[in-house]
Amino acid sequence: MASGTRGPRGPYRTGIKTREQIVLAAAKAFGEKGYRAASLRQIATDVGLSPAALLRHFERKEDLLAAVLNWWEDETAHRENPDLQGLRAIDQLRTSMAYHLEHRGLLELFITLTSEAAANPEHPARDFVRRRYAQVVRTKTDQLLQAVQTGEIPPLTEADAESDIRALLAVMDGLELQWLLDPNMDLVGTFNRYLDHALACWRAGTRPMP
Amino acid sequence: MASGTRGPRGPYRTGIKTREQIVLAAAKAFGEKGYRAASLRQIATDVGLSPAALLRHFERKEDLLAAVLNWWEDETAHRENPDLQGLRAIDQLRTSMAYHLEHRGLLELFITLTSEAAANPEHPARDFVRRRYAQVVRTKTDQLLQAVQTGEIPPLTEADAESDIRALLAVMDGLELQWLLDPNMDLVGTFNRYLDHALACWRAGTRPMP
Repeated sequence: MASGTRGPRGPYRTGIKTREQIVLAAAKAFGEKGYRAASLRQIATDVGLSPAALLRHFERKEDLLAAVLNWWEDETAHRENPDLQGLRAIDQLRTSMAYHLEHRGLLELFITLTSEAAANPEHPARDFVRRRYAQVVRTKTDQLLQAVQTGEIPPLTEADAESDIRALLAVMDGLELQWLLDPNMDLVGTFNRYLDHALACWRAGTRPMP
Repeated sequence: MASGTRGPRGPYRTGIKTREQIVLAAAKAFGEKGYRAASLRQIATDVGLSPAALLRHFERKEDLLAAVLNWWEDETAHRENPDLQGLRAIDQLRTSMAYHLEHRGLLELFITLTSEAAANPEHPARDFVRRRYAQVVRTKTDQLLQAVQTGEIPPLTEADAESDIRALLAVMDGLELQWLLDPNMDLVGTFNRYLDHALACWRAGTRPMP
């Protein structure tokens, strides 16, 4: 095996590791305090660096935000099995929910940056959040329409399918928010009950109601 | 009519008006930038005051937050008709949604402070947000159970009623978040479709699904 395949080593490798530590500390700080309120100085302290040393890795706060958003995308992408189709593909939202439960920091980052971007049109994460949200709506709507095409469920217009998916994703976000506020709340049970109901309605063709 | 009933006048009245202007500017700043990131200096500038003059009205940032939360409570309380019962009382969520649509600043404040309080257990608005959320869940669950008691809908356990209400409130929050991110999204149509469906399911007794 060529040594290159073992990845970088020496000072370069140390640099990558430090960079990763900075990104993780920044993700935590942005999630807990918000992007603007989080301080580069505190993030540097959290990983045992001087502010000047941190700036050698990330010149501006926005560069660090970009790295955090990349990390977020990597953490959440590829969690779904692309071989599943139709309702079984949609059912994988249970897996995402379980993952969030075990990675509260990621969930806090998601909730904080999404609401900051929602409330402030000038927020530097707004394009990312909008693009990512549109992508999830598109993917899940396509999976639902796929279930129609294969005859798994009765017909549903594209507009109604998108409306149902938007409500489903809203339930997920809203329940996660409730759970962060009140950890005693039965997040998994409430979400599963809702998803079971949605799946049953799609199968029975009782959506939309008259 | 005694002059007292016309309310305060002169310098005292000016003081109340200035105070109100500060609270409104703070609500806007907290909503757009977040509580920590918003600056007292900028809020003072927004209402044409010096920072020192603002501090004569609100000694600490937390005092200003408390005033903003009071304002929020006043804005959202008493919007519901207390004479309505059962499903008709729940149906009033449409009115709340329409009100949020027309008062984007209030919605931004709600989304921002709720997520900040969710992501940060030390947030000074956390107790308020938790208490307020628990209160809404309680009120709406009671209204749904009232519909059971009066025979308006078939039986539903208290746990299932709370679960349905939590999902309904989650849909509201989540769809409002989607709309802030993408104002082209059909917020009212999507929410009404969901609420129509929920009401029909409660009436038909098809919740919870097997």
